[in-house]
Amino acid sequence: MIDIATRVWNQRWRIDPIVRSLIDTDFYKLLMCQSVFRNHPDTRVRFSLINRSSDVPLARLIDEGELREQLDHLRSLSLTRGESTWLRGNTFYGKRQMFRPDFMEWFETMRLPPYDLQRVGDQYELTFEGSWPEVMLWEVPALAILMELRSRAVLRDMARFELQVLYARAMTRVWEKVERLRALDGLRLADFGTRRRHSFLWQDWCVQALHEGLGSAFTGTSNCLIAKDRDVEAIGTNAHELPMVYAALAEGDAALARAPYDVLADWQEEHDGNLRIILPDTYGTPGFLRNAPDWLAGWTGIRVDSGDPATGAETAIRWWKERGEDPTEKLVIFSDGLDVAKIEELHARFAGRVRVSFGWGTLLTNDFRGLVAGDALAPFSLVCKAVSADGRPTVKLSDNPRKAMGPSSEVERYKRVFGVGEQVGMEVVV
Amino acid sequence: MIDIATRVWNQRWRIDPIVRSLIDTDFYKLLMCQSVFRNHPDTRVRFSLINRSSDVPLARLIDEGELREQLDHLRSLSLTRGESTWLRGNTFYGKRQMFRPDFMEWFETMRLPPYDLQRVGDQYELTFEGSWPEVMLWEVPALAILMELRSRAVLRDMARFELQVLYARAMTRVWEKVERLRALDGLRLADFGTRRRHSFLWQDWCVQALHEGLGSAFTGTSNCLIAKDRDVEAIGTNAHELPMVYAALAEGDAALARAPYDVLADWQEEHDGNLRIILPDTYGTPGFLRNAPDWLAGWTGIRVDSGDPATGAETAIRWWKERGEDPTEKLVIFSDGLDVAKIEELHARFAGRVRVSFGWGTLLTNDFRGLVAGDALAPFSLVCKAVSADGRPTVKLSDNPRKAMGPSSEVERYKRVFGVGEQVGMEVVV
Repeated sequence: MIDIATRVWNQRWRIDPIVRSLIDTDFYKLLMCQSVFRNHPDTRVRFSLINRSSDVPLARLIDEGELREQLDHLRSLSLTRGESTWLRGNTFYGKRQMFRPDFMEWFETMRLPPYDLQRVGDQYELTFEGSWPEVMLWEVPALAILMELRSRAVLRDMARFELQVLYARAMTRVWEKVERLRALDGLRLADFGTRRRHSFLWQDWCVQALHEGLGSAFTGTSNCLIAKDRDVEAIGTNAHELPMVYAALAEGDAALARAPYDVLADWQEEHDGNLRIILPDTYGTPGFLRNAPDWLAGWTGIRVDSGDPATGAETAIRWWKERGEDPTEKLVIFSDGLDVAKIEELHARFAGRVRVSFGWGTLLTNDFRGLVAGDALAPFSLVCKAVSADGRPTVKLSDNPRKAMGPSSEVERYKRVFGVGEQVGMEVVV
Repeated sequence: MIDIATRVWNQRWRIDPIVRSLIDTDFYKLLMCQSVFRNHPDTRVRFSLINRSSDVPLARLIDEGELREQLDHLRSLSLTRGESTWLRGNTFYGKRQMFRPDFMEWFETMRLPPYDLQRVGDQYELTFEGSWPEVMLWEVPALAILMELRSRAVLRDMARFELQVLYARAMTRVWEKVERLRALDGLRLADFGTRRRHSFLWQDWCVQALHEGLGSAFTGTSNCLIAKDRDVEAIGTNAHELPMVYAALAEGDAALARAPYDVLADWQEEHDGNLRIILPDTYGTPGFLRNAPDWLAGWTGIRVDSGDPATGAETAIRWWKERGEDPTEKLVIFSDGLDVAKIEELHARFAGRVRVSFGWGTLLTNDFRGLVAGDALAPFSLVCKAVSADGRPTVKLSDNPRKAMGPSSEVERYKRVFGVGEQVGMEVVV
């Protein structure tokens, strides 16, 4: 029997919304938002969409009207009572009241600020301007909308069983990965795949499959809505936007050199334990660690998010030893371009030498490579970044020069200030 | 939203019935039943379950109580008005009123006769006795019930996503077969997989997948219920039980030698065109064709159901030529132990030389080989055969001596009467 009421209700949707909740976003975004809300509530920022895969003609694939409808829908959302209750009442990393009452009061009434959308050739220019705590909340859902609209465009012409077999193949692929990962003793792995997921429902499926298939080796998801609905841990710490904006706001080279550490000093005031994770690569990992204050060596771990991950981890291990820390008590989180073979390799190399954890992103939640003609569902490298703060351009160097961004004169200045020399370029897959 | 009424309704089912309709059976069973109802309504027969795969301990896998519940449920069924309307009103092989009013009136009130179930070691002895037109209707659903109860027993301990991935893998496998079959120019293929299917829902899925994936190359299904519900053609002609029972009833060797042709003489009175298909292997194909009356050479085609299929088809082609018929106008239906590689091979060898059609059975609707531990879902060779008629044992020789059945003294007599010499044994997979 079909539930007629449900069917009629569904007819009423003007669109099938991709993002249906303000907490359908990464947990670290909310942690960072709270920090920004406290420390930089009035900073004006500009975020911008950047399609690193220029061979994917987004504006030809995605209808502008549909994109606007999805973005407009997102702007109509506000935090629901249940979502607020969960954020206020849940334990995150074992801690209650992770989100302060003043932040929650602000978040409960917050609506996303306007966006600006222009078609330029075969690409979209999508930008968001306004106060940092508001604008920053656009990043993850905007990316998820673009990724899913692209998926929908490709799926639209497929027949019914063709669709079912497509998902059967994708499910089989995820499960084969799960079966390989089960063999890794002491594995700890979380889903970091919100932003570049194939679709919301697919990410939700992947999380549940990992939960059943990996048991306690699956530590949780970065996605708050899925964590809430599926009763798993919400996972994440902080990201590049903090040092990028802090750096852009810095007056002069000395302040610039200090900016990445100022971020973590602010962070340390709010968080302890597993939330004290260093993300050292924004302006080059070697220089960051070389010049780091001693208190940072006491932090719990490091997230390796660009460059060769084994090199990054070895650098961290050497640094901890130099600072008199025991690496076996430290946590290394790998989160860049992971797939099973890479996870196996890193696990084999580092398990026992440090505590290892994996934040598995796009190749968990969007591995449809090879499954349709022309590989039209293959994931691609779409990001949404802070490009300016209070009118000053941001810069990112990264441990992979192909991920660098910012005006070239500023890039040169940052390289000088942070002592970045030769870097090895690596292909950016996702 | 969950439809609460549906959920409550489902709670009320004492069991989840495997066979829910008297037309969840092969079309040819109904055609044969009508013929038997007309020509031998009072013949008493005994049908018996035979598990040719003695390594599959059915009685250890399947709970006797559950088996009885399913068989009892089947006995509670009668033809519904809609089913009757479909049988009376539909066109089969282009003909209206395939089923005569007197047969339909009988069928509308028919209930399946009692069964006898005994556990003997690790196997079940399941027998059905009564009038031929009633007892014969047990065969297909009884097999489907045993096959599905075995599937359910294996699936019972699997977790939710493990189950989903199992079906994802099985779907992917079917679709890969579809993709290979698409490449065959002029392919004609039907589903013959009711009796040894993994489950009803799975057969239903396979039929729909073939319908979408193969388009007009998919000619229909042997399953009447699925044909009706999915609006595809019902396919099938006649089977071994007709010559087996006719032969058992024959008085003396001369009548025995004539019995297989008597079957087809009765059939010819009722059917023409694509329903005039010879099944020549019951007592050996070469002897059957050698001794066949000339009017049989005028029939539309031959079904090759045991022995080496290419040899069977070559024998038929030679026979047609000897009898002055043009093989390119004749139909050869392959229906024994088919899978894609065999279909490709036979299609390549015979397309153009004869009209070729495939009746794809167990390896379409039950190919779960290698998908669970211990290969516990692999299909196996379960049959349900007429073992006696009016108290006299039946005999089958087949073109594969491993499919032979009957008391050995009778087997020797039949071999002598039908002039069957050396035969090549072939493994019986399904």
